[in-house]
Amino acid sequence: MPDNQKSVSSEKKQTEIVVKATKRRKPAQKKQIKTLKNASPLKIIPLGGLNEIGKNLTVFQTDNDIFLVDCGIAFPDYETPGVDVIIPDFTYLERNADKIKGIVITHGHEDHIGGIPFFLKKINVPVYGSALTLGLLEHKLKENNILSSTKLHQVKAGDIKSFGSMSVEFINVNHSIPESLGLAITTPAGIVVHTGDFKIDYTPINSDIIDLKRFGELGNKGVLALMSDSTNAERGGFTASERTVGDSFERLFHKAEGKRIIVATFASNVHRIQQIINCAEKNKRKVALFGRSMLNTFETATRLKCLKCPKNTMIETKDMAKYPDEKIVLITTGSQGEPLSALTRMASNDHRQVRITCHDYVILSANPIPGNEKHVTRVINDLMKSGADVVYEGMYEVHVSGHACQEELKLMLALTRPKFFIPVHGEYKHLTKHAKIANVMGIPEENIVVPALGNVIETDGDTIKVVSQVVSGSVYVDGNDVGGVGSIVLRDRKQLSQDGVIVVVVNYRDRALRGVELISRGFVYVRENEELMDNAKVAIIHSLNMLKDCHEWGVIKKKVSDALSEFVFQTTKRSPIILPVVIES
Amino acid sequence: MPDNQKSVSSEKKQTEIVVKATKRRKPAQKKQIKTLKNASPLKIIPLGGLNEIGKNLTVFQTDNDIFLVDCGIAFPDYETPGVDVIIPDFTYLERNADKIKGIVITHGHEDHIGGIPFFLKKINVPVYGSALTLGLLEHKLKENNILSSTKLHQVKAGDIKSFGSMSVEFINVNHSIPESLGLAITTPAGIVVHTGDFKIDYTPINSDIIDLKRFGELGNKGVLALMSDSTNAERGGFTASERTVGDSFERLFHKAEGKRIIVATFASNVHRIQQIINCAEKNKRKVALFGRSMLNTFETATRLKCLKCPKNTMIETKDMAKYPDEKIVLITTGSQGEPLSALTRMASNDHRQVRITCHDYVILSANPIPGNEKHVTRVINDLMKSGADVVYEGMYEVHVSGHACQEELKLMLALTRPKFFIPVHGEYKHLTKHAKIANVMGIPEENIVVPALGNVIETDGDTIKVVSQVVSGSVYVDGNDVGGVGSIVLRDRKQLSQDGVIVVVVNYRDRALRGVELISRGFVYVRENEELMDNAKVAIIHSLNMLKDCHEWGVIKKKVSDALSEFVFQTTKRSPIILPVVIES
Repeated sequence: MPDNQKSVSSEKKQTEIVVKATKRRKPAQKKQIKTLKNASPLKIIPLGGLNEIGKNLTVFQTDNDIFLVDCGIAFPDYETPGVDVIIPDFTYLERNADKIKGIVITHGHEDHIGGIPFFLKKINVPVYGSALTLGLLEHKLKENNILSSTKLHQVKAGDIKSFGSMSVEFINVNHSIPESLGLAITTPAGIVVHTGDFKIDYTPINSDIIDLKRFGELGNKGVLALMSDSTNAERGGFTASERTVGDSFERLFHKAEGKRIIVATFASNVHRIQQIINCAEKNKRKVALFGRSMLNTFETATRLKCLKCPKNTMIETKDMAKYPDEKIVLITTGSQGEPLSALTRMASNDHRQVRITCHDYVILSANPIPGNEKHVTRVINDLMKSGADVVYEGMYEVHVSGHACQEELKLMLALTRPKFFIPVHGEYKHLTKHAKIANVMGIPEENIVVPALGNVIETDGDTIKVVSQVVSGSVYVDGNDVGGVGSIVLRDRKQLSQDGVIVVVVNYRDRALRGVELISRGFVYVRENEELMDNAKVAIIHSLNMLKDCHEWGVIKKKVSDALSEFVFQTTKRSPIILPVVIES
Repeated sequence: MPDNQKSVSSEKKQTEIVVKATKRRKPAQKKQIKTLKNASPLKIIPLGGLNEIGKNLTVFQTDNDIFLVDCGIAFPDYETPGVDVIIPDFTYLERNADKIKGIVITHGHEDHIGGIPFFLKKINVPVYGSALTLGLLEHKLKENNILSSTKLHQVKAGDIKSFGSMSVEFINVNHSIPESLGLAITTPAGIVVHTGDFKIDYTPINSDIIDLKRFGELGNKGVLALMSDSTNAERGGFTASERTVGDSFERLFHKAEGKRIIVATFASNVHRIQQIINCAEKNKRKVALFGRSMLNTFETATRLKCLKCPKNTMIETKDMAKYPDEKIVLITTGSQGEPLSALTRMASNDHRQVRITCHDYVILSANPIPGNEKHVTRVINDLMKSGADVVYEGMYEVHVSGHACQEELKLMLALTRPKFFIPVHGEYKHLTKHAKIANVMGIPEENIVVPALGNVIETDGDTIKVVSQVVSGSVYVDGNDVGGVGSIVLRDRKQLSQDGVIVVVVNYRDRALRGVELISRGFVYVRENEELMDNAKVAIIHSLNMLKDCHEWGVIKKKVSDALSEFVFQTTKRSPIILPVVIES
């Protein structure tokens, strides 16, 4: 089996091992299982969501069965210029496609559902999720023309679904999107509880408190392993209830009297949107929505009754002019300062329908995700420059996290009392912190696995360990190209962004140098640097003259590159990419 | 006068205005002064440090005299790829060079002194600053070979220096570097207090409490305008004393018993370094320093007795091996996760002398500056993966800010009781917040100027207003090229980083198309996309065939560009930069 090997350093090596291992697989395995007290070992293989934020994907596998928990995307950053989204590496799953019985989705956030269309195009398996989760997924499947070919199974808390030798029970949890589900996974080795993303909200909006008693029952029954959300493992105390944000809105709506109110938040935060709408209705304001994802979520959540809109509260954006500013609330995307979002365009005076003035009261109901701070600050500055009042981060309680803080994580550990603990979802620092919390609560160090991507974590019910490693990592999607952008392309892009590019065209005819041409982009502004470019040409011609009668293109190209690189570095202390073109005519 | 005009939109326009204005300057001015109750109007022109963090530079000007307060750099971000540092635009100062009497430096941070060598190379004027500030500046002047040609005047709190019709008194303030100075600037229009960067520390290290009583005396005497540090204007309460960090170090050093301790902090934070050294000595540990700027600061601060080292505490890095881990403290740069810093190299297992293990206890004694969060997180993760304990942000009080929070800003306003208020140093959101604080404390809105770069703020003692605008902005330094990288080059670099570049070489001979060659970087990995590139060639050839007998290079180039752009976008949904080269041989 591909995952029964020690860590491999390259995909190629991996493939070779797979072939050999498959050949001698059966006898070896039978023997092994016998020693395992008749329990088929369970393999848990995280292919995303560890040592990173995003692209969550976990494989649960027994001898003959596999199902996946979530299949999300991650977003690019300065390390991945030009990349649109990042998906998990599906190599391992493609090699084991025949075993895969389905995908279970915990909730409808992008980092949990965004990768599903990419996966289904390779391997078509049924998808299980709550009504809202599937509703949001349907938009994506439609865009990818695979809606009709995909089997969607709607589930709700309390339901149990079988995947061969394993079954999954869905448990209600609180999070920043409705209908989020935790999982109790019954396997031959024992019960594994996967919390999904969760928090504990004793006063949730439009939904029930996380089903603490079910987690407790499972604890009494005996939980083999707990896999728990580590996102907020660094934060002490309890995450505040979503309801506190509603209280803040009440106060802020009073402060904003006489002004138009604009609230930016995550499109998927249906509870937040509900509270804004409730507050608008109470204050006799009409609500208009901005941003494609905001409209999509609104449509789906309303249809599925996750969002309850009082009659005559919502208006079309084109009807805004019919109402005075003080009677309007705009709810918009762009709380992260995303360059093309509705709020960013409003802030930079580039929105077709909304112009910001001193009659605007803007509430950023979200905290900046790490990496977005500068974008958000720019939007705030721009809004203020147009005269708007802006309420943001930390000024009032206009945002609460969707993830459990330390005291909630402890409660989950106390309820489930697992034998083994596997912290999931988060950077390495979060996982480590969460592991320490579990350790302090009595789980011995040897029963805790801080996993890495591609680890094959195996347990027979008695012990748990990382037994091998499978291919894992990031696949970059750029335009409509999946996987075509690799490390070499990214390295070139980064170098291009630092010092630009110079193309040198060297033209020979009848073995005599006829001309040298230079074209550059991102290097210097050529019109102001004609002398520099002329001197560069002289340096190139000089180096070619030294070659004398050599007419090997490879040698000429190298000579040209070296001469130009050296001249440019000596003159400007920069290192643009140099592309030599030799023409012999 | 160049600054007596309404806002100008381009530099060219500005220059024309200057010429005209200079011609008719004298009579107009004499008349004006008479109307101003014999007081020569004071002009304050911020050329840096507003609506941004960094490159602080403020011009104080009367009819015949100019002096500058600070001349710093800013650091590049995702908007300025490949740029090394950013300096203020000196155009206005070059046009008024004959009036400039000197530069006054408030303290030795890069965003206050980093631009001085660039300025002095254009206009050589005397520089005034405290011993440590000048000590740190000397390193830079030496590197630029202008140390011997620069006149440095050492000042200390209480000193007064004259600049023609204005004089500057230096006042002790607290900040995250020793010998920071606020300024009381006596001008014909009245006294302007400039706080510099400051905080109020009642228990500072190796220095005196900020001279609150002098600010109070000035308030009693009558302060025309207060220019005050807005960096922390969003934060309530008081900034904690530097001493609290020392207390944290004491506790952490005990926790770290038996391990090597590595503390990362800002090289310029001499008080912090002092506290680490004190703590090391108390715990019988030796101290070694890492990072060029750390060594520079240490050398200068020790020589000037800002830093007091107990005998035999410091060791050379080469002698580390002589001591067991638990007897060593390393102080290093890299607290911001800077890619080439000592700590980042240690974390990524790339440091020549230090290998991180589970015997290391690492303290990040700094908060991430906005924009650096992801870099810092990566370093923390990497350190932890090597087994180190890592203490960072928020876990203990291992860092305090160097800037005043709201209650301190109020105290400064209460002591100086200025007629006019000008918030400085900070993003627009910080300035606005600070303005609101001043307004709440009784300064009428019309007496507050929230300035923008290049504003000419004029006051005659009675009124204050922005009367015109001078050329201002950012000049990018890339390699040894100052100002050569402009918006076009940056736009190209950004596009190159998104989708790369394709060079198309079209070769004609005797008016017949002989060949088409494609070279790309940062677009696709060519070896895996030969078919794509072949099809692109076909598309180009097809488009050229349609041109028939046209042999205008411009037309051919455009045709090639358009055909390739369209083909590439249709096929890949990407938009690389396309560089057509036509060769006729």
